[in-house]
Amino acid sequence: MADTLGFIGLGNMGEPIAANLLQAGYTLRVYNRTASKAEKLAAKGATVVQNSADVAAPGGIVLTMLADDHAIEQVCLPPGSFVEKLGPGGIHISISTIAPATARRLAEHHAMHKVEYVASPVFGRPEAAAAKHLWVCASGAAPARKRVQPILSAIGQGTFEFGDDPGAANVVKLCGNFLIASAIEALSESFTLAEKNGVNKKDVAELFGKTLFACPVYQGYGNQISEENFEPAGFRLALGLKDISLALDTAAASSVPMPLASLLRDRWLTAIAKGRENMDWTAVALGVAEDAGLKPAAANANEGKMSAR
Amino acid sequence: MADTLGFIGLGNMGEPIAANLLQAGYTLRVYNRTASKAEKLAAKGATVVQNSADVAAPGGIVLTMLADDHAIEQVCLPPGSFVEKLGPGGIHISISTIAPATARRLAEHHAMHKVEYVASPVFGRPEAAAAKHLWVCASGAAPARKRVQPILSAIGQGTFEFGDDPGAANVVKLCGNFLIASAIEALSESFTLAEKNGVNKKDVAELFGKTLFACPVYQGYGNQISEENFEPAGFRLALGLKDISLALDTAAASSVPMPLASLLRDRWLTAIAKGRENMDWTAVALGVAEDAGLKPAAANANEGKMSAR
Amino acid sequence: MADTLGFIGLGNMGEPIAANLLQAGYTLRVYNRTASKAEKLAAKGATVVQNSADVAAPGGIVLTMLADDHAIEQVCLPPGSFVEKLGPGGIHISISTIAPATARRLAEHHAMHKVEYVASPVFGRPEAAAAKHLWVCASGAAPARKRVQPILSAIGQGTFEFGDDPGAANVVKLCGNFLIASAIEALSESFTLAEKNGVNKKDVAELFGKTLFACPVYQGYGNQISEENFEPAGFRLALGLKDISLALDTAAASSVPMPLASLLRDRWLTAIAKGRENMDWTAVALGVAEDAGLKPAAANANEGKMSAR
Amino acid sequence: MADTLGFIGLGNMGEPIAANLLQAGYTLRVYNRTASKAEKLAAKGATVVQNSADVAAPGGIVLTMLADDHAIEQVCLPPGSFVEKLGPGGIHISISTIAPATARRLAEHHAMHKVEYVASPVFGRPEAAAAKHLWVCASGAAPARKRVQPILSAIGQGTFEFGDDPGAANVVKLCGNFLIASAIEALSESFTLAEKNGVNKKDVAELFGKTLFACPVYQGYGNQISEENFEPAGFRLALGLKDISLALDTAAASSVPMPLASLLRDRWLTAIAKGRENMDWTAVALGVAEDAGLKPAAANANEGKMSAR
Repeated sequence: MADTLGFIGLGNMGEPIAANLLQAGYTLRVYNRTASKAEKLAAKGATVVQNSADVAAPGGIVLTMLADDHAIEQVCLPPGSFVEKLGPGGIHISISTIAPATARRLAEHHAMHKVEYVASPVFGRPEAAAAKHLWVCASGAAPARKRVQPILSAIGQGTFEFGDDPGAANVVKLCGNFLIASAIEALSESFTLAEKNGVNKKDVAELFGKTLFACPVYQGYGNQISEENFEPAGFRLALGLKDISLALDTAAASSVPMPLASLLRDRWLTAIAKGRENMDWTAVALGVAEDAGLKPAAANANEGKMSAR
Repeated sequence: MADTLGFIGLGNMGEPIAANLLQAGYTLRVYNRTASKAEKLAAKGATVVQNSADVAAPGGIVLTMLADDHAIEQVCLPPGSFVEKLGPGGIHISISTIAPATARRLAEHHAMHKVEYVASPVFGRPEAAAAKHLWVCASGAAPARKRVQPILSAIGQGTFEFGDDPGAANVVKLCGNFLIASAIEALSESFTLAEKNGVNKKDVAELFGKTLFACPVYQGYGNQISEENFEPAGFRLALGLKDISLALDTAAASSVPMPLASLLRDRWLTAIAKGRENMDWTAVALGVAEDAGLKPAAANANEGKMSAR
Repeated sequence: MADTLGFIGLGNMGEPIAANLLQAGYTLRVYNRTASKAEKLAAKGATVVQNSADVAAPGGIVLTMLADDHAIEQVCLPPGSFVEKLGPGGIHISISTIAPATARRLAEHHAMHKVEYVASPVFGRPEAAAAKHLWVCASGAAPARKRVQPILSAIGQGTFEFGDDPGAANVVKLCGNFLIASAIEALSESFTLAEKNGVNKKDVAELFGKTLFACPVYQGYGNQISEENFEPAGFRLALGLKDISLALDTAAASSVPMPLASLLRDRWLTAIAKGRENMDWTAVALGVAEDAGLKPAAANANEGKMSAR
Repeated sequence: MADTLGFIGLGNMGEPIAANLLQAGYTLRVYNRTASKAEKLAAKGATVVQNSADVAAPGGIVLTMLADDHAIEQVCLPPGSFVEKLGPGGIHISISTIAPATARRLAEHHAMHKVEYVASPVFGRPEAAAAKHLWVCASGAAPARKRVQPILSAIGQGTFEFGDDPGAANVVKLCGNFLIASAIEALSESFTLAEKNGVNKKDVAELFGKTLFACPVYQGYGNQISEENFEPAGFRLALGLKDISLALDTAAASSVPMPLASLLRDRWLTAIAKGRENMDWTAVALGVAEDAGLKPAAANANEGKMSAR
């Protein structure tokens, strides 16, 4: 019979991931800061606890899906946290996109309590999480990775392993989000070039999505950008800036110049300065079009929100 | 029975394309500046002529596959060219990657001789051309496009049409090469980030080629870059700079800033300044690695060619 | 007694330069495409001719101050041009900002007629020209440079010599305009940073203009940008783009990546796409502010001119 | 008679500043982590104390000149710090280049102890500090700024005031260092363009230093770069990266994209990746030249230090 698992963080991503674990036969103790978000899972059989530390049992396994580096540190580091309650033999599966350096610091912290840290960031939006279509990257001590393998299999369509360094999977995750953001910029620039030269951008998106770039990222984002379909957000623009900034910080710490990532950061900052932080991150395409003197219809909606001065 | 076609330009791309036309049952009159390159096709049944104008018959169809804007103008514009010989009812299928503005100027020139210009740039390397795996973009007057459709079908696996503007297909072709070059830069930066953080770049290439970016460009170039496999060139780095520059010129003429294209141009210029113009265009990855203080083995080969001081 | 000189091109810069030559005692034969612009000089004693070639006398000296590479080629290259009329011993002093490559081509052309080409681009706006405050850069064959020295002294406050290569002075001129444009971008970014952090940009301009950057470029442009004083144009934004593009073309031809120049080109293109081509080139600061979500008052004036969609 | 002042931080900059205060008649209690560095000042009459808090007297004034945000927080924030000892009526004059956000946090901290925080970053290298040629920027509560005015006058040639926000002077300081770094990049690119086009970069530096850019930054750095005079460091390249990064962080926090600052950051990161962190920050010019295929002599010295692979 399967373990009882702890799960902390039931947002857009965490909730469907936890639901898949229930579906796979795991028993769950769940915690969310806003308790109401736990109700759906309770209805599916999860036990809701009132304190994050209470999801843990000695020697057990806890998954976290939290917003950012700060949130995860707030949950893990204070005395009496779930990490201490896990104690010897325990494993923390950390799904969030955070800095590799933070992952390594957490692993050191956990080691003091004889808890293993397994970094397991995932690729996929909430719909993919619900459909068990996530791709999982895993790194951390080999025995721990082996033990959690069935759990990771229960939440995604495939797991890629990146060795013992607890920061490694996060490096890969940051590479991935950087690659996606780069594709968004490239598509946006090419569509604007096409449009100002009399070529329909939807035709361009279709061509490339069917041929050279017949893959999920270019098909999905190509359609979204060419159809100016930026709301509601699948992935908030502000979160995209967070991830690009994490990539740049990680790069700087290892003396790696990434001029394309720098360009993306400025593009995202501009979108946020124009009040688009809650649009989908493909909405940076609006700025690309505006810089070419176009006035996309989708841009006007938010004009009132621009910071006045 | 199929037409007799003229074909000018039997380089790496032109020769296999012409061979596929013979294979499809067309009769060919071919011309190449360096006559020896025509021998293979002669052995397969093509008639080799000594003057480029002699490939044409009144009212017939001529394909050209030439190196750049200058080469195509040299062949088309002088008095007595194949265009004049084609005359009323004739069609010129121009396969090269050239500036949309040049295509439009040629179309105007051809119109004076009642010849139609069909822009038909293709995506694919020489192997793809030989395997009939090219993707063809076509634009120009609709009746002409209709008449040449069987010919374009004989050289590729699919044709995408972009309307009557003779420059449109070239706009799309420049978009495509820009997207590919952007992917090369993005992959190079992410691999360097991975490598300096202890993650094997081949593992990163494998992950993304199997998941989010499971498409020809990312798989092919991902492997090439992660394996530092830059010679012999599939597509010469210097030709890549030509195409990026054409995209930027076309963008400037229509007041479109393309900061990512600008970044690519500088990356490519650096590679050329370091003596890498004849390596594959993925070799720009060497510069990305060097900027991060790495000394890739593949970089040393060419060191002697750097301009001394 | 001083020579009789020919002078072609009586625009904003050419007219005050020619006036200073009259003032210095030279006799002038002048030509301008729009004849009415020559009237002021005629009133001061210049002889107005109806054909550009007529400004020249055999073995004499002709100055040209024309808009761009194309304009100067149109005047110099056709049969019967002033160059042919100058003939052996003649000198052409070319004041315009053009590509070094064009200067070299012109010098070769002139050599066929035994005419020397002296490149003499100048730094300074029309007011500086009128006040004889221009700085002159000169290059070309040494004897010719020596002969024209008094003429160049009569139009500026100092001449800097850059050797025999007729393109050299233009290289230096492009460096200078690139340096100025870079300063405009740097000032604009720093003022926007200040402004969004509650610091008055005029105070910042004052500090730096009085201390580290107590020089004409930072003082003049610092005031203009911090006071949002972009019209009328001292130097048209569209001309700035021309010069930045010349620098980039010259750089590309010699395999020199100039990422800062690329950034400037994109900044200027954006301004032009937004309809600001006739504002002063410091108006690129509007785009810097807009990218940070600010809405500078000076930007609204031109909003109606943006290309609609 | 003048106050007794406390002074913490006797590095390259702190030592000459403190010496000028002694010279001006102030009595000093000084502290430095490495005590030996205090000996020179002791010889000139300063009292050396063994604990940083001991420089302070109740209601008095303490100046700090520390390396970075972390160092200053380490000295100010722990219980028993000099701030607590200053207490009501005390003033802390903070000369370091730090983030405006840090300055504001410190001011809030100090307010709890009724101590005023006056930000007083300075422009100038150690020689300028010794010569009393620094330019001082000051911000903070007006009465405190008034009280410290004579002290600031004793260490520089002029003070510029930026109001009550304790972060404001640091914003201006970051603007200044960004402007200088921008000038270094612009000079480097233009010199490389000149050099690869046959023009001597020293001649270019001379021209601009005497004319359009006749100011300390362009004259000093123009000479240094054109003469490839990068060691010993006047200002360490690694410190330059720190300041550019502070500017970018401050910009990001206020949603200001600064693409030129991003470009500079990548340039500086490259230099550090190549082992040049201890060279003068003008040594980024080596990378500019290398990207154009040049091999500057000054680059070879450090080649052995590049990270191996």
